[in-house]
Amino acid sequence: MTVDTTPDIESALRHVKSAVRELSAYTLRNHEPRVKLNQNESPYDVPAELKVALWASLAARTWSRYPPFVASDFIGAVAEATSWPEAGILVGNGSNELIQALLAIVVERGRTVVIPEPTFTLYRLLTGVGGGTVESVALEEDLKFDVDGIIAAARRTAASIVVLCTPNNPTGSALSREEIEVLHDGTEALIVLDQAYVEFGGYDAIPLLVDRPRVVILRTFSKAMGMAGLRAGYLLGHPDLVREISKAKLPYNINFVTESIAAEVLRNRGLLQPQIDRIRAERERLFERMAGIEGIRVFASAGNFLLFRVEHPGVDHRVVFRRLVEEHGVLVRDVSDYPMLERCLRVSAGAPEENDAFVAGLVAVLSR
Amino acid sequence: MTVDTTPDIESALRHVKSAVRELSAYTLRNHEPRVKLNQNESPYDVPAELKVALWASLAARTWSRYPPFVASDFIGAVAEATSWPEAGILVGNGSNELIQALLAIVVERGRTVVIPEPTFTLYRLLTGVGGGTVESVALEEDLKFDVDGIIAAARRTAASIVVLCTPNNPTGSALSREEIEVLHDGTEALIVLDQAYVEFGGYDAIPLLVDRPRVVILRTFSKAMGMAGLRAGYLLGHPDLVREISKAKLPYNINFVTESIAAEVLRNRGLLQPQIDRIRAERERLFERMAGIEGIRVFASAGNFLLFRVEHPGVDHRVVFRRLVEEHGVLVRDVSDYPMLERCLRVSAGAPEENDAFVAGLVAVLSR
Repeated sequence: MTVDTTPDIESALRHVKSAVRELSAYTLRNHEPRVKLNQNESPYDVPAELKVALWASLAARTWSRYPPFVASDFIGAVAEATSWPEAGILVGNGSNELIQALLAIVVERGRTVVIPEPTFTLYRLLTGVGGGTVESVALEEDLKFDVDGIIAAARRTAASIVVLCTPNNPTGSALSREEIEVLHDGTEALIVLDQAYVEFGGYDAIPLLVDRPRVVILRTFSKAMGMAGLRAGYLLGHPDLVREISKAKLPYNINFVTESIAAEVLRNRGLLQPQIDRIRAERERLFERMAGIEGIRVFASAGNFLLFRVEHPGVDHRVVFRRLVEEHGVLVRDVSDYPMLERCLRVSAGAPEENDAFVAGLVAVLSR
Repeated sequence: MTVDTTPDIESALRHVKSAVRELSAYTLRNHEPRVKLNQNESPYDVPAELKVALWASLAARTWSRYPPFVASDFIGAVAEATSWPEAGILVGNGSNELIQALLAIVVERGRTVVIPEPTFTLYRLLTGVGGGTVESVALEEDLKFDVDGIIAAARRTAASIVVLCTPNNPTGSALSREEIEVLHDGTEALIVLDQAYVEFGGYDAIPLLVDRPRVVILRTFSKAMGMAGLRAGYLLGHPDLVREISKAKLPYNINFVTESIAAEVLRNRGLLQPQIDRIRAERERLFERMAGIEGIRVFASAGNFLLFRVEHPGVDHRVVFRRLVEEHGVLVRDVSDYPMLERCLRVSAGAPEENDAFVAGLVAVLSR
């Protein structure tokens, strides 16, 4: 069957919100490199013995039956791991789905979301889909958060939400406990803390939930937990607020595979700590090595990745990106189209041999 | 950690849209009965040999890596099965996720969605979350669609969307090709056809897509495909419209397990046809048997379920529901709180022995 281009597609498109039509979709080019350091994934797979144990329970399950209405096994494991009550927990297919639900219950025309930028682009995209207004606050020159500027913007716009990615992707900047408290107390907005990378550094904000019902925390299994392929994440907040967010979350959103595996991995999270420690150590080792390479500037990071700027005169960052992948098989992320990040690339901290391959490639590319 | 009830939770809740606060969440009580006929699931599990083959490919995969940016294996299998181009296909975690994305790009304050009711309640819930207005059109007395009434409502309200669940859950009513064409041509709205049950009956609307860019079709793997536990669905529409809908769909929404399994099951869909035929035959057998039971009225259905009203004088439908599950281990769905469906229950067509257990239980409950 072919699509007829004759009919008046405009008769369908005119129903799409104008704010949506103006948006670009979230896209990413596919590459299949030898060394993949472009998505801040864990280089360590789920242990084989855990996979086998999981399979035994999954094969025995009837796949034609819906998952439980409440993913209580997963939620129970989160409650145990975070010491936060089950009624204040939502689980989703990655934390993206939970950011989406949160924005859906708040954002509409006339509402403002304050977003320090550069940061993860999904917050801006989903605010736009909801018809809300993004108030962008630039990071400071050294890519740290401009706490005073964020507070001023939230007050000036009577913002509904302030989204803080901490540690921040793609810069690695992180907020301290004191900074988050000042941000909270200085505004009246919901303070959404996307802590996708917190296992690698930065302040873990869970204690702030106890007496600050405007704080919401998002966590993912895609980074430190080593399960990007499985899509799992969770949200922590005051139970009364979580009840409202749950209205925009779809029933049966989590399939039984994700639920079982996420719960089991959380219960066995002690096994993952050595991997996390190794990745943190690799990030530090990578930082030291990159700091010694002439022609680039590397930024300190609390995540499992490093941002760097190609400052070598006469070397185009796009050439560095392309030669790394074509000549050395190392794929990094070109983030130079983010605000403030001209000539910048981002590299994930991988396994030691992957990081060595990256450094060797970078040195070679810059030296000729 | 306990939740402090002292802090001013209202400071957080005041940011939630008032339309959302007024909504009730989608809920369902959990039961674990011997015979489960409450969710229109397939009684037939995915064949064991298919499970084993799937596991081999999943175990070999690195779970810590993101799924592909575009679920091309899954989308390719849908394109092959439907003869619809890949650019006009979106895949999601169940069709619910795709309805959500579609409503998100259209619905805002001031927009109207026409919904014939009673029907699946999620359309109303998500329209409310988006701040839109639901224009409800009652089914006719015999629970058929009121085509003229739907057209009149869409015109009167200059509706953006008409959502048609065909075959309709929970009534089993279905629209003919001619009725859908009349509905389309008589309105200017997007015509969304949720065809979750179409493998069991009713007109398969895919041919209408070719020269009607306002038509969007949703399909699920949760019913005839026997994969409710895995959450998979797809959307078909004009590529230009699909591009807009994709802006509200999250990146990496489908995990690699769902993608692999859904694609493989689609490619092996011939294996499922005997199961589907058996379920259709069981629905007919069940209808005949129920039509012979005094005190109930059963409605003809194009789905894998039957709606029936308890008309026996002096017998409360809630007592029938409760005694079926407590005394006979048979769980059906109480749909009596839907508009027009007072005293009504819905039973899924299960395996022959499950349906026999249901009929025997129903006869016993009504006879004393």
